[in-house]
Amino acid sequence: MQEAKKSELPVLAIDLGGTKIIAAIISDKGQVMAREYYLTLAEEGPQPVIGRVLSAIAHLLDSGNLDLSELRSISLAAAGAIDLDKGLVTLSPNLPGWYNIPLRDIVKDKHGVNTFLINDASAAALGEHQFGVGRGVNNLILLTLGTGIGGGVIINGKLYSGPCGSAGEIGHMTIDVNGPRCSCGNVGCLEMLASGTAIAQEAIRRISQGEKSSLAEIVDGKAGNITAEAVGVAAKNGDSLALEVISRAATYLGVGMVNLVNILNPEMIIIGGGMAQMGDLLLDTARQVVKERAFPLSAQAVRIVTAQLGENAGVLGAAVFARQQN
Amino acid sequence: MQEAKKSELPVLAIDLGGTKIIAAIISDKGQVMAREYYLTLAEEGPQPVIGRVLSAIAHLLDSGNLDLSELRSISLAAAGAIDLDKGLVTLSPNLPGWYNIPLRDIVKDKHGVNTFLINDASAAALGEHQFGVGRGVNNLILLTLGTGIGGGVIINGKLYSGPCGSAGEIGHMTIDVNGPRCSCGNVGCLEMLASGTAIAQEAIRRISQGEKSSLAEIVDGKAGNITAEAVGVAAKNGDSLALEVISRAATYLGVGMVNLVNILNPEMIIIGGGMAQMGDLLLDTARQVVKERAFPLSAQAVRIVTAQLGENAGVLGAAVFARQQN
Repeated sequence: MQEAKKSELPVLAIDLGGTKIIAAIISDKGQVMAREYYLTLAEEGPQPVIGRVLSAIAHLLDSGNLDLSELRSISLAAAGAIDLDKGLVTLSPNLPGWYNIPLRDIVKDKHGVNTFLINDASAAALGEHQFGVGRGVNNLILLTLGTGIGGGVIINGKLYSGPCGSAGEIGHMTIDVNGPRCSCGNVGCLEMLASGTAIAQEAIRRISQGEKSSLAEIVDGKAGNITAEAVGVAAKNGDSLALEVISRAATYLGVGMVNLVNILNPEMIIIGGGMAQMGDLLLDTARQVVKERAFPLSAQAVRIVTAQLGENAGVLGAAVFARQQN
Repeated sequence: MQEAKKSELPVLAIDLGGTKIIAAIISDKGQVMAREYYLTLAEEGPQPVIGRVLSAIAHLLDSGNLDLSELRSISLAAAGAIDLDKGLVTLSPNLPGWYNIPLRDIVKDKHGVNTFLINDASAAALGEHQFGVGRGVNNLILLTLGTGIGGGVIINGKLYSGPCGSAGEIGHMTIDVNGPRCSCGNVGCLEMLASGTAIAQEAIRRISQGEKSSLAEIVDGKAGNITAEAVGVAAKNGDSLALEVISRAATYLGVGMVNLVNILNPEMIIIGGGMAQMGDLLLDTARQVVKERAFPLSAQAVRIVTAQLGENAGVLGAAVFARQQN
């Protein structure tokens, strides 16, 4: 009886991204019972960010009048390469200075609650598979498109993390062997060509060279302030430079998808993260590339869709992960 | 009792490649009881090749004095994209003219024996996993390097073929987005840069442009006759052009492996096919690229090795597949 009760307790889940930290209380049915968010301010380095994670946890418990004993566990999803076994963030292109940080045990030691740590895109894949657009789909890949590109892989209905827990670094596959070096150490990574950062940089480059675009007005002539979001808005309004920049990134995204389709024959590729808001503006081109270039049988089998759970995918999936562990 | 006996019967296995057809009788313990081989002569098109497969089966039964009723099943491994469900070779870059050929049912209808069909590299992966260098390794990828590049993926101890059975087309991942178009319809495929064909073509190109190499003598001055095997021999003898050509292909191979390591975090990558004979001449460079470019945790976890079963991997694995199906 006591056992059954424990399993019904909520999970406190954290999604630690390069831009923001989302903290939420998730019920055993997958309801988001409470939710807060904070800016990560990742550029300040690991210690202040860890401090913010710890206060987010404390604040969420406080404001919900929850005691630690009323939690089943704490589950952390972080934007980086995770050592599942040891609970480390081994490195993270989007969290500067994070090398082998024992985030899981820092939180566990502080709060004395069973704590888990996984990659944020893996968490989002689990979330979408359990509660979102991927329900009932046994083989799927989720890509988080934002500052970087993360990946989560569901195979035969289960999260595939690989023997070290470090699988799914889809943003760091080379698609341009003659391309520039990525901060991960590899060259010509998908992330450098198809992420939000890549879209913003390409628009900045072209406008700085004097090309005309309504984007220049949106950012008051300061090309450096252009974001992927702004490019998306301009493209929806018919700005031709913005449309070209997005089409270029979408073609690269399609090339990355062709690789995934040929290697893994997934039933579904889900696009999450901030850039998912661009919707078909981004995905129609990517779908076309897959149709033209991937092996026909696999190309016909894959549905390329946007995520359903928005910003909650990570915390929902982190809670699913924690429930699967104990 | 009758059931138990049936399960102990041998499997007649065929490995249909772009260059040759291997036919073998495989015992329930994985012993190769008889083995023959024929040239595929793939350029003659599907009908003559299917004829050769059927006569290979008949001849092997004849010469072993075996009756069809003494077989557990027939299992076919073919170099192409397979529709597992329907038993089709849907297309094959190395078997010209093969589109949606119902090879499984052609053989089944002819011989009236339970018949199976899988991709040849998947079969080799199963073979090496069960009887070769991959024994006891739960997550591995096998690459067959020869005329083309095939792939087989073992995840959590089982062959991963994807929902359509078309996963594993590792040779057809784009690593050079600005590269030339591949016969598969994709661009800048790994196969175009790191296969035996790519090695031979690069050597031919350079020698035709007047560069000096001992290779020119080996082929009596006819650059067009240069094969990857000849390049390997010249490289082992210290020929600097041959060494450069192999180093270039090995670097591309390493780039492909980085992608696999970052996406799937395998414990082992096995190199099979004709080019496996180059051994460390090829693999040392590829290993170095993986070490330098892949995520450290995953890079440290992967062993890059040559296959152990040689030409028998495909027929041994095809037999394993058949035994797993019924």
